[in-house]
Amino acid sequence: MALRVPIPTTCLRTGYGSARTETRNPVMGVRNSTAIRAVLKQKPKPKPKQVEVNKPVWEEVERLERMFREEKYGSGDNPSPSTGFSGSPVRVAYQGVRGSYCQEAATKAFASSSNAIPCTRMEDAFEALEDKSAHRAIIAVENSIDGTIDRNLDLLLRHKDVSIIGELIIPVNHCLLAHPGASRAQIKRIVSHPQALDHCKTRLQLLDIEIVEVANAADAAQFLSENCVTDTAVIGSKIAAKEFGLQVLHENFQDPVPNCNRFLQLGFRPSMPVNTTFCSGEWKTTVAFTLNNGVSDLFRALSLFENRNVTVTKVEQRPNRSNPIRVMKNKTRDTGCFDYVFIVDLNGNVSDSGITSSLARLEEISGFLRVLGSYTCGSIC
Amino acid sequence: MALRVPIPTTCLRTGYGSARTETRNPVMGVRNSTAIRAVLKQKPKPKPKQVEVNKPVWEEVERLERMFREEKYGSGDNPSPSTGFSGSPVRVAYQGVRGSYCQEAATKAFASSSNAIPCTRMEDAFEALEDKSAHRAIIAVENSIDGTIDRNLDLLLRHKDVSIIGELIIPVNHCLLAHPGASRAQIKRIVSHPQALDHCKTRLQLLDIEIVEVANAADAAQFLSENCVTDTAVIGSKIAAKEFGLQVLHENFQDPVPNCNRFLQLGFRPSMPVNTTFCSGEWKTTVAFTLNNGVSDLFRALSLFENRNVTVTKVEQRPNRSNPIRVMKNKTRDTGCFDYVFIVDLNGNVSDSGITSSLARLEEISGFLRVLGSYTCGSIC
Repeated sequence: MALRVPIPTTCLRTGYGSARTETRNPVMGVRNSTAIRAVLKQKPKPKPKQVEVNKPVWEEVERLERMFREEKYGSGDNPSPSTGFSGSPVRVAYQGVRGSYCQEAATKAFASSSNAIPCTRMEDAFEALEDKSAHRAIIAVENSIDGTIDRNLDLLLRHKDVSIIGELIIPVNHCLLAHPGASRAQIKRIVSHPQALDHCKTRLQLLDIEIVEVANAADAAQFLSENCVTDTAVIGSKIAAKEFGLQVLHENFQDPVPNCNRFLQLGFRPSMPVNTTFCSGEWKTTVAFTLNNGVSDLFRALSLFENRNVTVTKVEQRPNRSNPIRVMKNKTRDTGCFDYVFIVDLNGNVSDSGITSSLARLEEISGFLRVLGSYTCGSIC
Repeated sequence: MALRVPIPTTCLRTGYGSARTETRNPVMGVRNSTAIRAVLKQKPKPKPKQVEVNKPVWEEVERLERMFREEKYGSGDNPSPSTGFSGSPVRVAYQGVRGSYCQEAATKAFASSSNAIPCTRMEDAFEALEDKSAHRAIIAVENSIDGTIDRNLDLLLRHKDVSIIGELIIPVNHCLLAHPGASRAQIKRIVSHPQALDHCKTRLQLLDIEIVEVANAADAAQFLSENCVTDTAVIGSKIAAKEFGLQVLHENFQDPVPNCNRFLQLGFRPSMPVNTTFCSGEWKTTVAFTLNNGVSDLFRALSLFENRNVTVTKVEQRPNRSNPIRVMKNKTRDTGCFDYVFIVDLNGNVSDSGITSSLARLEEISGFLRVLGSYTCGSIC
């Protein structure tokens, strides 16, 4: 059977694990996004049912996180010791739909004891933490080939009570998925998100087959399953195969280039005391700041860390939305220039003396400074 | 009349002036992008007719650019001295469709003497330079509120023979556009690109009107015009009103936050000798480099400029696609981490002694180093 009704397409802007549900407006014939309505606060979205926040659940969350750190997160195939938890389930919001790479990350972090909540809008995962409908959230922040998902950095800056409490770096495993009733010979086309198709382009170039771009690979996988489509394969996550009962025709279908996704685990305000029993190298601290003298002072900011032997592992910038243009004094005249918030990752715990001292000095040259989180850093498996 | 056929929607991923034409596959019901086909080289896109490259045209391009620098680019309303040019027209490729903000930038740079070539795929503007079908290209690289258009930085890195030869910083003027036959009272909905709607959200929140997200505001403007739609307004560029004969109901409809777009003018290889008659402060140089020791050496790289009084105005990073994961020696064990290409803007001409000397030293700690361009910098009007 060929696909005869539209696969639900979602916004392409935000990379893996991020999507917005859109509906077709039969009058307009254009995309009427729930996202923009929510932005404009005309039709507030219904909130997920709020769970009662009880102490044992939070204790269990922290126990799981300790295990997570100690075990370096178990895989979905080999559940971590956190399975078998008998209390209230840990509610983990993740950006994306069922079958997305972000769901895979949530499963790796909390194994099957967690109650995963898919969030179609990127903001939803943050709001779920704020209204306590989720204990934890998992968001995608970077792909080693495609770069940072800027929107999530902006959301981290905007949601002041949300902190980074963990990092997961997971090698991409693009799987070629098909309906269990389909044979390889039947496959006439391969569909996926453009980013995934780009990651697999070497293999795809060798195939004499139709390649079709869709906005959301997990939605396409679900569609193949529900509509018994046997002439189409989708490049998607292994968890999509499990969720929708598809067969995996090929694992690691991507080009042989190191390809990893980086996810962050978020919580509502730092819920754990900073634990310095882990050696410094296993911790990471993310700091956001503006500079009173703009980009030209980035050298000075980085030197504060350098002089205290604090290793900087990432330097990112986003527009300073509260004041996007600054006036700079030039030799001849004042000129306006774009201003930024810098987001810097440091090796070490925020309570390490080098970081504490660097941040105290950084504050002197910053208009804004916030520690976004201090957390155990993920290693590339 | 209400819109009854789809406004052509294009990919939402890339911000202003960047779009891809997509067609609906009647069998699949999903978006079948020309972009991905081209990536996979299954159906090479037809190239625009190649113009004969003659010396007078190139001389004229350079004359216009001199004027452009001297005049600080004239506005579309008040054409620069470059109008009235009687030779072959200058062919300027721009990313986007007719009526886009990028067309507006191309017009501001070259006024009416230019022959503007809309490029639906982002790559097309670069390829038009390489195959000589365009003398110059205009691409959007940044918005002061939404940040950098990463994809264009990646394209700049990939297209080695394309150089930055100019910069334009243009304040955003989101206009509320409607069919000339429409009255304000008739308008029942406002449509635009989600980024533009977000820029205008304060005003939109005050209106009791349907807000609809479309993938391309210029396409929507054209649709309103061609289909005599009188119940819908579009937030778009002033040039869209001119192109499609729409009335401007409201100029500067955006929120009162400094909002500018930054565009780059590109050429095929540096065509002009570096001109040091302009004072250093009016020039900018963009350099891309990797660091042998990764991000932790960014401090060292920036110190090379700092020590020679070279002002850094922007520090950007993109994944090092040729080697996205590097192995770092840690105290306890080797770990993999993401690796980046840094893209740094400097005040000054590449022939300035401070920059020349900094780059010579930078080369010693870089695996890759390329000057992407040395050009007169745009000022915020």
